[in-house]
Amino acid sequence: VSDVRTIHIGLLGLGNVGQAVAAVCEATRGSLIARGLDLRILVALVRDASRSRNCVGAETVVTADPDEFFAQPLDVVVEVIGGVEVPLAYVTRALARGIPVVTANKSLVAAHGPQLARLAARTGTTLRCEASAIAGVPFLGALRQRPLLARCDRVAAILNGTSNYVLTAMTTKGETFERALRAAQAHGYAEPDPSRDVSGLDAADKLVVILQHLGIGGVVADEIETSGIDELDPQDLTQAGVFGGTIKPIAFAIVQEERVSAFVGPTWLPESHSLARIDAEQNAVCLHGPEIGRLCFSGPGAGPEITAGTLLDDVVEVAVSSNAVCAADVTPDRVVHATTPATPWFIRIDYADQAPDARDVQELLASFGIWIRRISDAAREGRVYGITHTCARAQLDASLGALRAATGCTYFACRALED
Amino acid sequence: VSDVRTIHIGLLGLGNVGQAVAAVCEATRGSLIARGLDLRILVALVRDASRSRNCVGAETVVTADPDEFFAQPLDVVVEVIGGVEVPLAYVTRALARGIPVVTANKSLVAAHGPQLARLAARTGTTLRCEASAIAGVPFLGALRQRPLLARCDRVAAILNGTSNYVLTAMTTKGETFERALRAAQAHGYAEPDPSRDVSGLDAADKLVVILQHLGIGGVVADEIETSGIDELDPQDLTQAGVFGGTIKPIAFAIVQEERVSAFVGPTWLPESHSLARIDAEQNAVCLHGPEIGRLCFSGPGAGPEITAGTLLDDVVEVAVSSNAVCAADVTPDRVVHATTPATPWFIRIDYADQAPDARDVQELLASFGIWIRRISDAAREGRVYGITHTCARAQLDASLGALRAATGCTYFACRALED
Repeated sequence: VSDVRTIHIGLLGLGNVGQAVAAVCEATRGSLIARGLDLRILVALVRDASRSRNCVGAETVVTADPDEFFAQPLDVVVEVIGGVEVPLAYVTRALARGIPVVTANKSLVAAHGPQLARLAARTGTTLRCEASAIAGVPFLGALRQRPLLARCDRVAAILNGTSNYVLTAMTTKGETFERALRAAQAHGYAEPDPSRDVSGLDAADKLVVILQHLGIGGVVADEIETSGIDELDPQDLTQAGVFGGTIKPIAFAIVQEERVSAFVGPTWLPESHSLARIDAEQNAVCLHGPEIGRLCFSGPGAGPEITAGTLLDDVVEVAVSSNAVCAADVTPDRVVHATTPATPWFIRIDYADQAPDARDVQELLASFGIWIRRISDAAREGRVYGITHTCARAQLDASLGALRAATGCTYFACRALED
Repeated sequence: VSDVRTIHIGLLGLGNVGQAVAAVCEATRGSLIARGLDLRILVALVRDASRSRNCVGAETVVTADPDEFFAQPLDVVVEVIGGVEVPLAYVTRALARGIPVVTANKSLVAAHGPQLARLAARTGTTLRCEASAIAGVPFLGALRQRPLLARCDRVAAILNGTSNYVLTAMTTKGETFERALRAAQAHGYAEPDPSRDVSGLDAADKLVVILQHLGIGGVVADEIETSGIDELDPQDLTQAGVFGGTIKPIAFAIVQEERVSAFVGPTWLPESHSLARIDAEQNAVCLHGPEIGRLCFSGPGAGPEITAGTLLDDVVEVAVSSNAVCAADVTPDRVVHATTPATPWFIRIDYADQAPDARDVQELLASFGIWIRRISDAAREGRVYGITHTCARAQLDASLGALRAATGCTYFACRALED
């Protein structure tokens, strides 16, 4: 290629991912130059410029001064600071000046995506965040650019690698939650503070980002029913297998005209479900609709190099077509209410003493309005498992609450999906 | 949206897929207008204009005259004629005039994709063919636009729904090839003449299209080792399960700097393989590379409505960004040699009389240079199955040929993959 365009990148942040962006940019330079693009990190904004100097090449200006950062002639800004308020100020500043922004920050996009997209549309630029949900697997761009694809009405996904790694280890190795989580941390999948991972808050942010790419901008992560995986014990996962399935950390949404029903949490799936075999740290999303059938995208969801590669592919896209306004950019977001769907439930009931036999438990539950589709025969140990017919959470909670009051049992329930 | 752009489509062909394009265009008009685009089929080129009049609305000109077709003010041409030479002339004419073209025609793109892309680049327009491989699942666009993603070095895919439907029915229901194929035809998955499906030629075309999207333009479908699924019998598929796996219709390529190793044909996969659970008419592609990990995309691969929706999403993309030249468009295709990889093999050996026991067969094969990793104990019936260690086709053929000459046995072999 005779014509090589140089793209000047401003990098916000030089942590793990920022350093990987610099390294992948360097490692892939030849291959990108062969495609007519020379990506250069012109400047990096950091908290302590003296400390971060060695993470990037000599041609990169490293500064702690935002004004010096924005004084550079930037073609694209890549945001890898993390958090919400600090990057929001910088991303807003870039977009307001018409500089395209690429980010992997799901919290930022979940909280402020629609208004940032509107700002970008006003100044004739764009915000890309392919790495913000299932970092290594490109599908948000397809939803963004392809309106008939984006007419899907159901999303089921595994969006958090730490949670999936932990549940997979509990399932296949009988590990306890605590041991499995320590192993995830040892492998580098989990953050030092993994609370947003195991609580489902990380996946809820990503689900909101996906919904935004379906043209739904009104859903706030806090509104989504979110359950953590930390209440599960190895016996639960064994029983999930006895019921012919497995428990996975699922993010789920049904999209209707006027509302979205969604939840995030551990969920029993039958073995035949497309997500049942997505194991360890892998992520996946299935999109379902009457017109598109069922599509599934799976792959690595995290890792500094994977995330960096996806960020740089976003940089290439905006560099090549930064003036093309995508269909999604001009869509007025539908603002819809987030509610919770009715689903079957995987339930565990613990009796202090020996439990009644399966048939008696089933009748007792029915008398409290809980209709059981499957029940375990492990009642001898004082513990009974079941999968209920479809019902709303409020009904399940009321029924199990009444059962507890009447019999002194304790219980745990998580959702189940059939297909 | 106050600003609605009308996109004038010229439709080449009004067969099954052409009629579905007209129907889906009509059915989704409201949703696309809400996104600022009004897609109108201005003109359709057909062989017999009087016969095809009722397939489209009154506002569409139906003509058998190419000059009348090209006299219209076309924003995008959608080609759904099928075949190679006839559409080639029209597609060339459109691109030469700077009109973007969208097609689902894998044979056309496999045979002439690179030169059509070069023509499009010269006239400042574009050729899109997302529907040409795994029609319902968008991934070619991602490869096209995202150069770091496109650095994957291994492709394994199920690209033909008819073959997958047939092998799935033979596996799960013990059907013969002939009965399973008739069922596929009854379901509408197979063409009246399914020979390109079951022979692997259809999948070879699609593999060439995928390789083009990895920047490799030199591979011709005829050069790819292609085996049909019609030599398999139900017992083969049962034995595949006994060996802990399944036989799937696989298209496979390893991409190296200077060459591509590829094959298309029935292939034994272990049960843990990402493609082992892609059943019935579903299609899938797995992309693998040191930088991207393993990504899989799966979903429906065919069907008139699915194909039409994908074609119209391509229309939206070119309408919105027809002036954006993608990275892939400016890449000089690497012209590489297509060769065949060394793999393990799934082999069936039939003796006229009772076969020697497994251990003797294993020793005999070893004496002919075939090292067996697994062997069946079904020797009593005069038939022995095995999975070999990795070797080249030439070595396998020479060894099995010598065995046949020495013992009078007959044999069948298909490839196997380990991960």
